[in-house]
Amino acid sequence: MAAHDALPLVVLTEQFAKLPGIGMKSAARLAYYVMSMDAQEVQDFATALLNARNTVHYCKCCENLTDKEICPICDDLSRDASTICVVETPKDVNAFERTGEYQGVYHVLHGLISPLRGVMPDDLKIRSLIARVQKGGIQEVIMATNPTVEGDATAAYISQLLKPLGVKVTRLAFGLPVGGMLEYADEVTLYKALENRNDM
Amino acid sequence: MAAHDALPLVVLTEQFAKLPGIGMKSAARLAYYVMSMDAQEVQDFATALLNARNTVHYCKCCENLTDKEICPICDDLSRDASTICVVETPKDVNAFERTGEYQGVYHVLHGLISPLRGVMPDDLKIRSLIARVQKGGIQEVIMATNPTVEGDATAAYISQLLKPLGVKVTRLAFGLPVGGMLEYADEVTLYKALENRNDM
Repeated sequence: MAAHDALPLVVLTEQFAKLPGIGMKSAARLAYYVMSMDAQEVQDFATALLNARNTVHYCKCCENLTDKEICPICDDLSRDASTICVVETPKDVNAFERTGEYQGVYHVLHGLISPLRGVMPDDLKIRSLIARVQKGGIQEVIMATNPTVEGDATAAYISQLLKPLGVKVTRLAFGLPVGGMLEYADEVTLYKALENRNDM
Repeated sequence: MAAHDALPLVVLTEQFAKLPGIGMKSAARLAYYVMSMDAQEVQDFATALLNARNTVHYCKCCENLTDKEICPICDDLSRDASTICVVETPKDVNAFERTGEYQGVYHVLHGLISPLRGVMPDDLKIRSLIARVQKGGIQEVIMATNPTVEGDATAAYISQLLKPLGVKVTRLAFGLPVGGMLEYADEVTLYKALENRNDM
């Protein structure tokens, strides 16, 4: 984009460049592409943006994104509502759903505790998780945050709050990824795999 | 995105995935990001999309994108209107403008002739280029399409149409890129550099 460029194009480029992972060059390419789209297609895109932002909100129960009051997973009576899998983001819910194995419900934290980035426990959806457990009927809470420093710390923090409520708190197993090669595994993963070894 | 995802989010993801270079995974990431933006920011984004598509059109003179009737470059009386640089896309205009060396004007073709992809001469802005030259006052037309098969063919085609009109038609010089290394240059580039060698 340069001084002689049409201003609306420059504005659109700056809007694209605000999105994560899109630099100024890609943003300019996308803005030029929009020029080649049908007016109706652009209208549909703009409508989709506003629709998504204005109609999608957090599920009253699990805090996942939904356009209904209660999300389809919480609303599904065939699922085991006594097991809650606690994840960082809605994307993690999708990852578990893709396995097709998990029959319980979820709770989305929308972040991890990170004092360095100014994210404190109250910024996450921890309070509503505690309230859910306090209401009763929960037998197990699976901490499924990422195996990172922040993920582990958040899991430990929440676990401390939940245990006095008399609920079983578990953590995802860490070990070798299926299909992975021993020689390429990092030391910590290998140590975890050894420590958590199972009988054959 | 999965079956349990909120429909407006799925729709937005599909819209993002229509953009060039954005796959379904990136599109989902962008859609989730939109959820975390302020409502006003999303409104600004949607407005920028519609504004750009609805107010930006082709310059009546050079076919570059502009929100005015005549683009700032054609409208700039200090520029040499007797020299036209013919490029494929508006991005190429930016590339020349960044050099700060070119003082003439442009003509944007919006594509290259490509029978395999169904792009015929009439699909490009060739007719308006011929009309511009026929109106008189043009001394030189520089064919600045990319040095590819399609770029060369388009340049040759337009050149044949322009020469009978008594205008000088030139082609960009091809040779070693400045700062490039001989050993990494491909054969055709090296041959062109040898063929077009200059006195020192």
